[in-house]
Amino acid sequence: VTRAIVLVAHGARDPRWAEPFDAVAARVRAALPGGRVALAFLELMAPTLAEAVDRLAAEGASAVDIVPLFLGSGGHVREHLPALVEALRRVHPGTALHLHPAIGEHTSVVEAMARAAVEAAGFRE
Amino acid sequence: VTRAIVLVAHGARDPRWAEPFDAVAARVRAALPGGRVALAFLELMAPTLAEAVDRLAAEGASAVDIVPLFLGSGGHVREHLPALVEALRRVHPGTALHLHPAIGEHTSVVEAMARAAVEAAGFRE
Repeated sequence: VTRAIVLVAHGARDPRWAEPFDAVAARVRAALPGGRVALAFLELMAPTLAEAVDRLAAEGASAVDIVPLFLGSGGHVREHLPALVEALRRVHPGTALHLHPAIGEHTSVVEAMARAAVEAAGFRE
Repeated sequence: VTRAIVLVAHGARDPRWAEPFDAVAARVRAALPGGRVALAFLELMAPTLAEAVDRLAAEGASAVDIVPLFLGSGGHVREHLPALVEALRRVHPGTALHLHPAIGEHTSVVEAMARAAVEAAGFRE
């Protein structure tokens, strides 16, 4: 079994938008030396989720964990991504695709944002 | 000086989308007992940033820290929000509005997402 992670973000016109997502991908790669870690986008940036999964499947990945780098879970996370993943399962029957909940569902991420907001505002009671 | 924080998120059609942002606001409130902490949205959800700032100014806030709960900094963070804040400064000359960088610029938030992604995928080398 050759496993891989795809981190999938929304995408935007401004290339600087991707910076924190690139930083997350770099840290995940550092945490998994030798692991296959791809960053993909729903729109406006490359590669798409399909392109990333196609490449990983061609490289022999038998299982791919797809982690949405989204805070809120709306239409993109609840409808668009599951439909894309279902379509990719039909294209790549030999690769198990596991779509995870949005990263914003993790308490540790919520806590980090809250701490950062309090520190940014720089005021204490 | 009466200070306040406004956490501003994008907004979405699905009400469940706001859950992690509500959770961040709840934690910021808990960290600042008695502090004025509002959650506002750029679109599709209420209150808007203008509504939140109007109310805080009416309540006597002399300084408001505005913290964007956005991961990437694209058009919303670099253009839309600064223009909104500049317009609000003209409406509320007695309230100092400080627009902070996006929460995704904080290393601690990037680190939390990376750890959560590795844990979610559940694989180790």
